[in-house]
Amino acid sequence: MRELIARLREGVPAEAVLTDPDVTAAYARDQAAFSDAGVPAVVVLPRTADQVRHVMRTATALRVPVVPQGARTGLSGGANAVDGCVVLSLAAMDRILEIDPVERTAVVEPGVVNAALSRAAAEHGLCFPPDPSSWQECTIGGNIGTGAGGLCCVKYGVTAEYVLGLEVVLADGRLLTTGRRTAKGVAGYDLTRLFVGSEGTLGIVVKAVLGLRPAPPPQLAMVAEFPSAAAASAAVCSIMARGHTPSLLELMDGTSVRAVNALARMGLPESTEALLLAAFDTPDPAADLAAVGALCTAAGATAVVPAEDQAESELLLQARRLALPALERLAPSTMIDDVCVPRGRLGDMLDGVAEVARKHALTIGVCAHAGDGNTHPVVCFDPHDPDQTRRAREAFDAIMALGLELGGTITGEHGVGLLKRDWLARELGETGVEVQRGIKAVLDPLGLLNPGKLF
Amino acid sequence: MRELIARLREGVPAEAVLTDPDVTAAYARDQAAFSDAGVPAVVVLPRTADQVRHVMRTATALRVPVVPQGARTGLSGGANAVDGCVVLSLAAMDRILEIDPVERTAVVEPGVVNAALSRAAAEHGLCFPPDPSSWQECTIGGNIGTGAGGLCCVKYGVTAEYVLGLEVVLADGRLLTTGRRTAKGVAGYDLTRLFVGSEGTLGIVVKAVLGLRPAPPPQLAMVAEFPSAAAASAAVCSIMARGHTPSLLELMDGTSVRAVNALARMGLPESTEALLLAAFDTPDPAADLAAVGALCTAAGATAVVPAEDQAESELLLQARRLALPALERLAPSTMIDDVCVPRGRLGDMLDGVAEVARKHALTIGVCAHAGDGNTHPVVCFDPHDPDQTRRAREAFDAIMALGLELGGTITGEHGVGLLKRDWLARELGETGVEVQRGIKAVLDPLGLLNPGKLF
Repeated sequence: MRELIARLREGVPAEAVLTDPDVTAAYARDQAAFSDAGVPAVVVLPRTADQVRHVMRTATALRVPVVPQGARTGLSGGANAVDGCVVLSLAAMDRILEIDPVERTAVVEPGVVNAALSRAAAEHGLCFPPDPSSWQECTIGGNIGTGAGGLCCVKYGVTAEYVLGLEVVLADGRLLTTGRRTAKGVAGYDLTRLFVGSEGTLGIVVKAVLGLRPAPPPQLAMVAEFPSAAAASAAVCSIMARGHTPSLLELMDGTSVRAVNALARMGLPESTEALLLAAFDTPDPAADLAAVGALCTAAGATAVVPAEDQAESELLLQARRLALPALERLAPSTMIDDVCVPRGRLGDMLDGVAEVARKHALTIGVCAHAGDGNTHPVVCFDPHDPDQTRRAREAFDAIMALGLELGGTITGEHGVGLLKRDWLARELGETGVEVQRGIKAVLDPLGLLNPGKLF
Repeated sequence: MRELIARLREGVPAEAVLTDPDVTAAYARDQAAFSDAGVPAVVVLPRTADQVRHVMRTATALRVPVVPQGARTGLSGGANAVDGCVVLSLAAMDRILEIDPVERTAVVEPGVVNAALSRAAAEHGLCFPPDPSSWQECTIGGNIGTGAGGLCCVKYGVTAEYVLGLEVVLADGRLLTTGRRTAKGVAGYDLTRLFVGSEGTLGIVVKAVLGLRPAPPPQLAMVAEFPSAAAASAAVCSIMARGHTPSLLELMDGTSVRAVNALARMGLPESTEALLLAAFDTPDPAADLAAVGALCTAAGATAVVPAEDQAESELLLQARRLALPALERLAPSTMIDDVCVPRGRLGDMLDGVAEVARKHALTIGVCAHAGDGNTHPVVCFDPHDPDQTRRAREAFDAIMALGLELGGTITGEHGVGLLKRDWLARELGETGVEVQRGIKAVLDPLGLLNPGKLF
């Protein structure tokens, strides 16, 4: 270890190489429950691609594992340290290098915070759509590593769709440039997309060319109350089948609604079983909301309340954004799942989760990016109660099993990390995992990059 | 070869195994000029994934190369046979298996013709945006293999963005399922995107889950005349920088305009140096066209003529769609290039191409997906004139060199194939090619799939 530190300092300033165990312990894990974390040997905070290359060359020479990190807001343990590793935090590489309104691109370093990029883009009349819940803290590098989503996806898609090109430091320290700065390009295999969502197991992103969009008009929102999750899900299907493109289509179950009221006295309807939030950023959002409201009523909504203005819309969004923190306050600990199913199976998924909760005698609140079929069941439990903890773990797994059974995926936007590693093979199948391992071996033959994650 | 045929017929019906040299010769090449084509040993037209698996198992057992083909409308030689190969035509696997308006997905076999899918989607109020020039003939499998684009891309993006999941037969006959049927998903590396644009070198797509969009309203078009390519390019930059999202933004240079007039008497303005076509499918296209027209005028347009109605819009689009066939009639042979540059460099690109034409004493007409910076310089030459042919080849290369110099790519949507193989390494660099070769070796260790293409 002494040699490791000494050699790291040959290419990285001393103040960027942290060895105090009290300090490095803070870098041990992300925000996932039920995920083991090891003790890092050292934390390095490089400021340049050359420093990252030095770290990787050193790690390769000494055969030391490297765990890349952004803001550690991940929910799958994908950024958790392994014993004796170099934690490579990209947080200090936080420069926005370019924003170009003609190309509609941004060139950024990986440590740029999502919200910082959003603000910078807005100054040019542009936006970077991906908006995970952690957008005020999480980094673009982390967004790329996990393939992050958010509320925007139903209209604007996920992070992957906004990554045009990358500079990546490979395990052995070589620098690889992928993709392009142009609007289109098909020269060779799409390595850019291979790195997006690869959770730091294939290389270290040190620069990204991102696509931006013209900033849309402010969205106008509406809320609809339903007597059952099934009715709300039917409304979602009907909205999408009729060709509407809401800028947001979110669902909160009764547990989430009551949790948000308890946290923030939002005055949401306490007795509802499912609340649907829809919004449009179209030229005539009120008309679109009226059409969607009618579909909600036809699907059984007991009340449909469009926001009167921007401020009311903002409050409704605020309520949705509070759902996760509110559910987290219902118990000493929570596990947030991330199962995405075909829209047509959303009702089955929600009913199934309710059944899982009953069977395991647990509180499980659900909020969902309903328009994408992406549910976030939040399993509440007390980690000091071993039996409850066991049941929580079982319920978490049962939810993934249900998702796969309904034709869905174990992770819509949070990634596999440590938490869902055993489940990846069930989703991908044997051939799928073999191919993925083969690709991993091409890029990281010594297995040094974020070992133990994904598979 | 007798053994090859016999073993193929053990798993594929006799009528689907073509051996008559007069017949198989028709499958030797796609539509690219300057690309060598070998003599296939046999052409197989399977109807099921199992038959494809049998073909690949046989090819692997006998170490015979396999060249997959769709409609052979490609422009890079990517579907050209190699001597003694199995040509694997997917044209007979042409079933649309599902169209689901709630999920906004289609499940199709690779031989489905792009236009057939478009028609089927339209019956459900949906559309499959990618619209390459060959859309009435080309297949979805070919679109996926090349990562095809079209006129739609400036607003709706390229084929890759509409491929959610694949079933792929690997070189050894194993069946790999990639991706998902859900709106989102990040379970493992994005193998789906790895296959899109891989030009048949990694596996044989036998089924695809495609994303569809609600059919947009009909578009209204406008044409603007410019005294120079530079002025038209400045208008493109100004339109994009102001946040407009046209559904089409195309450019035809003077040579293209005159060629279209010669072919179809369209009455386009003969004296123009550059014609810009813009269209909007927004709720108020006339207002959007007016705004864009003003920007054109500010950039130096000498005339701005919005279409009065749908029929006139359709005529303008027709003129643009005729540009390639019209340019092809200017000489006994043509080479169509496909260089994409940053929008801000479009003017430099067009001026540079004109300079290349002058220097090599050749006619080079250009039409371009201007909103994407994707130019198609068409180099006209007589293949019976060796000196002209040499100059044409040199001009074609000079255009790619210019594109790279301007920060662009050697191929925006046509692919590398045989034609641009020597250029791929110049764009990707040594590390890029090494990684790509490594991935190829994982999926096709014997190098049987479409050998000699890409690199």
